[in-house]
Amino acid sequence: MSMTPLPPGSTIGILGGGQLGRMLALAAARLGFDVAILEPEADSPAARVAAHAIVGAYDDPRALTALAELADVVTFEFENVPAGAVERLTALGVRVAPGAKALAVAQDRVAEKTFLNEAGAPTVAFAKADDILEAAQALEQIGAPALMKTRRDGYDGKGQMWVEHAADAGRAFAALGGKPVIVEAPADFVRELSVIAARGCDGEIAVYPLGENHHEKGVLRQTMAPAQVSADTAAQAERIAHQILTSLDYVGVIGIELFELADGRLLVNEIAPRVHNTGHWTQDGCEVDQFEQQIRAVAGWPLGPTAALARVEMINLLGEEADHWAKLAGEPDARLHLYGKRETKPGRKMGHVNRLRPL
Amino acid sequence: MSMTPLPPGSTIGILGGGQLGRMLALAAARLGFDVAILEPEADSPAARVAAHAIVGAYDDPRALTALAELADVVTFEFENVPAGAVERLTALGVRVAPGAKALAVAQDRVAEKTFLNEAGAPTVAFAKADDILEAAQALEQIGAPALMKTRRDGYDGKGQMWVEHAADAGRAFAALGGKPVIVEAPADFVRELSVIAARGCDGEIAVYPLGENHHEKGVLRQTMAPAQVSADTAAQAERIAHQILTSLDYVGVIGIELFELADGRLLVNEIAPRVHNTGHWTQDGCEVDQFEQQIRAVAGWPLGPTAALARVEMINLLGEEADHWAKLAGEPDARLHLYGKRETKPGRKMGHVNRLRPL
Repeated sequence: MSMTPLPPGSTIGILGGGQLGRMLALAAARLGFDVAILEPEADSPAARVAAHAIVGAYDDPRALTALAELADVVTFEFENVPAGAVERLTALGVRVAPGAKALAVAQDRVAEKTFLNEAGAPTVAFAKADDILEAAQALEQIGAPALMKTRRDGYDGKGQMWVEHAADAGRAFAALGGKPVIVEAPADFVRELSVIAARGCDGEIAVYPLGENHHEKGVLRQTMAPAQVSADTAAQAERIAHQILTSLDYVGVIGIELFELADGRLLVNEIAPRVHNTGHWTQDGCEVDQFEQQIRAVAGWPLGPTAALARVEMINLLGEEADHWAKLAGEPDARLHLYGKRETKPGRKMGHVNRLRPL
Repeated sequence: MSMTPLPPGSTIGILGGGQLGRMLALAAARLGFDVAILEPEADSPAARVAAHAIVGAYDDPRALTALAELADVVTFEFENVPAGAVERLTALGVRVAPGAKALAVAQDRVAEKTFLNEAGAPTVAFAKADDILEAAQALEQIGAPALMKTRRDGYDGKGQMWVEHAADAGRAFAALGGKPVIVEAPADFVRELSVIAARGCDGEIAVYPLGENHHEKGVLRQTMAPAQVSADTAAQAERIAHQILTSLDYVGVIGIELFELADGRLLVNEIAPRVHNTGHWTQDGCEVDQFEQQIRAVAGWPLGPTAALARVEMINLLGEEADHWAKLAGEPDARLHLYGKRETKPGRKMGHVNRLRPL
């Protein structure tokens, strides 16, 4: 799909008022756009830097109509956008990017892995299960130990558990709420990598260097970028990104989480159809960061350069870690990004810091 | 003056809703601050990226009271802030930075040059004149040709004219509105340079590399930075910046316009007690740009590093030049900054582009 680029002064609609929406709004403003945020909570971090704020549920028809009246294009900061919201916005004549297909795939772990394998992006072996009986069968098929996850609504390590023995399948299924699940073979990975990529309205693709990620308790702790990888690994990641973006006829930035195996192969862990925490290093490591890239893509602008200008260590500031802002502000090579969240909760993403070193 | 640094979540008040206010607001948001804009016009570029917008005159007591209730510190994007506004905000218990002294000096060209010379920052020879008789005397003293400028309210080449012959002094004085003027000896400069510097609440000073500026019809057209200068020139500029900032007990970013003479001496042309158009290159050429630096300074945070990471050519986009945004967006090394102004007028600053090259 090609389109006439949206002129500055147009309004970018964003579903979601958290830190990703906020950083998208700041990037949009730099390019002369206005921003309209739709978010259920008032006084959200993104709304406070946007020209327009609509407070409402993501599936509230009146809120969506108000957004459609303001916005020339709508994007989102999270993958669990209700399908009905996209349908309604589309029916109201507003383009939504990335589109419904990317959301459908990202919202359901079974649809996601099925899509990825069809697109030629390898994943671990998996099986789906809708009830206790199927859960036991899935464990038989995949073998224990395995990871059982709800098909929908998991994030940051929530909605998943390890099943050590096949006999525990039913208990795990019940513990996850008795909802449809996916059972995944463990990935015997040596590293967690990710690649942030973008595709423009004209099909142009731009891929950032890989990041190496470290999680703690399911939450991203650190990204080192550009990751030290072989040329073959970089080429695999680039190929995977191209296949995913092209197969989805995607417009926007995507985050692709990867497992690097001992033999050098990459498997796709999951995809996020949005700017991604593992791409925050681009804010201080690249000329055009993932947030501006997303705005460029959905506005039909040409994509920007993705080369790294520095080595970056991105550290998430979780909960009270953000209270150390004064110390971090005094470190000469630490670029501080704080999200304007009113309340500090344990483990909550309050900000991040990018520590820069020469390439 | 030292102070406890303002915590993220505090509100920075900004007088002025134009592009400088907008870029200050974006920098403040990145550090987790809220922003309140006071500006006479509704729907201003800065208000559209700020949590709070107060529409009112800068000397409107109600507007100032509203701002004082919101803001933990107040700064400004232009030097012609009414002295009464600063007095009122101060009386309401709100700190204003940079302070009243810097504003008083920057608002009156005679006070400015008198201050600069006292501070050890050399300028051209000058004389003041309050009436036609004094205008003629000033021309006699300085010698023709000379530059006659209104003492107050001039900017971008407005409110000034060349006087070729001493006999024209009266005519020029009348043409400038019969208001108090300054008569300046011409500076026989080889280049126009500028230096952007900052001073923190604790007296810490940080100086960016020099920029080389090219004006057209009194309006900045281009800045090349870092300027190619001798070590002696850089040292002179650094010394001048230190002397000015210290003498004013300054807190914030200052723009200092300089003339480089054929013999290598630097004269100060004028100072602007705010972020400055000739400092826009820092947005893409430095880790911490002048906007974040200003927020850091007025919030009592430590100053950030000022070293250049790239060579930057900053070009102002005046009037319809900004209509070429699509072409500029496609240039890989051009970083585009657009101000969100609703109306394009001839010569109006609509945006700028920073073209990057390796150092």
